[in-house]
Amino acid sequence: MQVKDLEAAMTVADTREGQRLYFDDIKVGARFTTRSHALDEAQIKAFATEFDPQPFHLDDAAARNTLFGGLAASGWHTAAISMRLLVDSGMPIAGGIIGGGGELNWPRPTRPGDILRVESEILEVTPSRSRPDRGTVKIRNETRNQHGDVVQTFTAKLVVPRRAPEQPT
Amino acid sequence: MQVKDLEAAMTVADTREGQRLYFDDIKVGARFTTRSHALDEAQIKAFATEFDPQPFHLDDAAARNTLFGGLAASGWHTAAISMRLLVDSGMPIAGGIIGGGGELNWPRPTRPGDILRVESEILEVTPSRSRPDRGTVKIRNETRNQHGDVVQTFTAKLVVPRRAPEQPT
Repeated sequence: MQVKDLEAAMTVADTREGQRLYFDDIKVGARFTTRSHALDEAQIKAFATEFDPQPFHLDDAAARNTLFGGLAASGWHTAAISMRLLVDSGMPIAGGIIGGGGELNWPRPTRPGDILRVESEILEVTPSRSRPDRGTVKIRNETRNQHGDVVQTFTAKLVVPRRAPEQPT
Repeated sequence: MQVKDLEAAMTVADTREGQRLYFDDIKVGARFTTRSHALDEAQIKAFATEFDPQPFHLDDAAARNTLFGGLAASGWHTAAISMRLLVDSGMPIAGGIIGGGGELNWPRPTRPGDILRVESEILEVTPSRSRPDRGTVKIRNETRNQHGDVVQTFTAKLVVPRRAPEQPT
């Protein structure tokens, strides 16, 4: 663990108990790592049945002859799990995680048995010109499996409230 | 309905019965519209409970004082529903809908009572230089509500198989 990571982890430990991070607290280069989630075949099939019922997300035998070469989770399932990890144990933003979208990539499939976590890094912080009560935070979220392989990147712009002037720091 | 839309709709009707579209069949400017999906409060809360348990996705009263101003679906829920609509009734691609990601935006919230559909347009078709059996199709998918408002755009690059030379057209 790098010192920068340790500092971020301590910041999270300090704040998650009660206080959460406002725009003014968030620095470029800060990093956060979530807890992990163990993915299994039943979860993959349940999500796919509801939202992405294609053979390579539903049946291992059917997936063998596709580009995936075996059962793989829907990319939207990977995205949804990543969001859950961020909400539970990512950067604890005051006001919650609210974004307008971003660039989403799935460089490799997510498989049954994968253990996923999200590693985030703050790329930019930009105060709003028109709204003094908020700013934009650009964050890169990498979802990795137990081997450290990146299975998803999502670079998003979040809307984060500024600390009110009268509020104690 | 524009003539271009009608032609695309007829193509879909012709092909969905059995034959699906290969790379060689897909033309820039072709448009497709899915069936619709009626979103309700129970669906919004169920998805949020599992994947995005933040107050503005779980409780209308709690959402009043947030940026959303009332209960709104998780953006990932909108994305998952959009995928389901595309799988069921979007462009019927041979080999399925397989993409490596794209640019995702949520210009406005999705609400209980919204009726969602996806309108797609083919932006680019690019044969693979290294793999003669496939090509890349860039597609813009707009998810709209019953008022025609765009609630999500997802511009994605899909991997689409080419028709084998011996295969009848």
